[in-house]
Amino acid sequence: MKKFAVILSGCGVYDGAEIHEATLTLYAIRKNGADYEIFAPNINQHHVVNHITGQEMKETRNVLVESARIARGKISDLKDFNPGRFDALILPGGFGAAKNLSSFAFDGPSCKVNEDVEKAIVLSHKAGIPIGALCISPVLLAKIVGNVEVTIGKDTGTAEAVRTMGAVHKETNHGDVAIDHKNKIFTTPCYMLDADIAQIGEGTENIVKAMLKYA
Amino acid sequence: MKKFAVILSGCGVYDGAEIHEATLTLYAIRKNGADYEIFAPNINQHHVVNHITGQEMKETRNVLVESARIARGKISDLKDFNPGRFDALILPGGFGAAKNLSSFAFDGPSCKVNEDVEKAIVLSHKAGIPIGALCISPVLLAKIVGNVEVTIGKDTGTAEAVRTMGAVHKETNHGDVAIDHKNKIFTTPCYMLDADIAQIGEGTENIVKAMLKYA
Repeated sequence: MKKFAVILSGCGVYDGAEIHEATLTLYAIRKNGADYEIFAPNINQHHVVNHITGQEMKETRNVLVESARIARGKISDLKDFNPGRFDALILPGGFGAAKNLSSFAFDGPSCKVNEDVEKAIVLSHKAGIPIGALCISPVLLAKIVGNVEVTIGKDTGTAEAVRTMGAVHKETNHGDVAIDHKNKIFTTPCYMLDADIAQIGEGTENIVKAMLKYA
Repeated sequence: MKKFAVILSGCGVYDGAEIHEATLTLYAIRKNGADYEIFAPNINQHHVVNHITGQEMKETRNVLVESARIARGKISDLKDFNPGRFDALILPGGFGAAKNLSSFAFDGPSCKVNEDVEKAIVLSHKAGIPIGALCISPVLLAKIVGNVEVTIGKDTGTAEAVRTMGAVHKETNHGDVAIDHKNKIFTTPCYMLDADIAQIGEGTENIVKAMLKYA
């Protein structure tokens, strides 16, 4: 059975992993006959956001501990990730990718990427396993791998940032998967477009199926 | 377009709404051509649980605010629920149903149910719209509506509690939906069984489809 490593960035679109994208990724993996293990970095979130008001809350939450809500407790510190044990790596989206896994939300193309995330991407790319990224997470691949083709949907500002980091941007619509065959990199826009949850399910199904052909 | 009201109980299986059940319910609703609005009571959670260790954390979180993570911010106070605006009501599971929406986790059959939850169930039942409940949430219907047929899977202790509250328990397996035709009550076991996420998707798809025939 093919096994995916899934990297989460918290639990909630505005300060962590986007819950629908993360859940529907896990669902697509199992529904298509593969299995998964979940990872997250053991660091504090950049901040905590009240998802009704959008305001920052005076709280501290840990990315690994909050990601465990989506993982139902079965989760490992990303420090322990070993690409030799996996057939594919996938990163759902949410602001957590741009606030916790990296500083892209604040620094744009000159962002820093968390060292465990960088190591997981670099080692997986070297190992030649397919890497998938949803929503805003493709910016991490543009930053780390550099000369790759990815999509973040149609947002012109983010597409420009992707190009500044040395990558090629491909415009896509709901459910589309941009495939960089040479680098085995798979990306899909999900909530980077004005999408509903059924369209997210289409995107996660399509990207997981595409990755399984290369895994 | 048929519209479901969805009641959440937080965000995370051990102290709130079970995230996979909640997300896959929303997905099944949209995928089957219906729409939804999300509600939660504006109360503090019973407690906050670290989902890795299972230990209680010294924090206070609000059920409505945390449920908004699953809802991506689009959520209303359950106080404002009006069954006249909806074709169906559905409650995903998770310990939040037994710790926040009611005290079933602590008091069993003699539990109290949150007054906004009770009102939503009573008014929906009077209005004759189908009511669905996943996982442990059927205990709320047993407590409030009483003489109904529901399933919580195969757990003998919980099934006995359901009978003590005056309801009939029907044993079910993965993906099965127990239908009480007379009361238009639909229940499915989900994570009350030792399930994987693909089986949760089967359960949510089946219950939503069954409810839409009656909506």
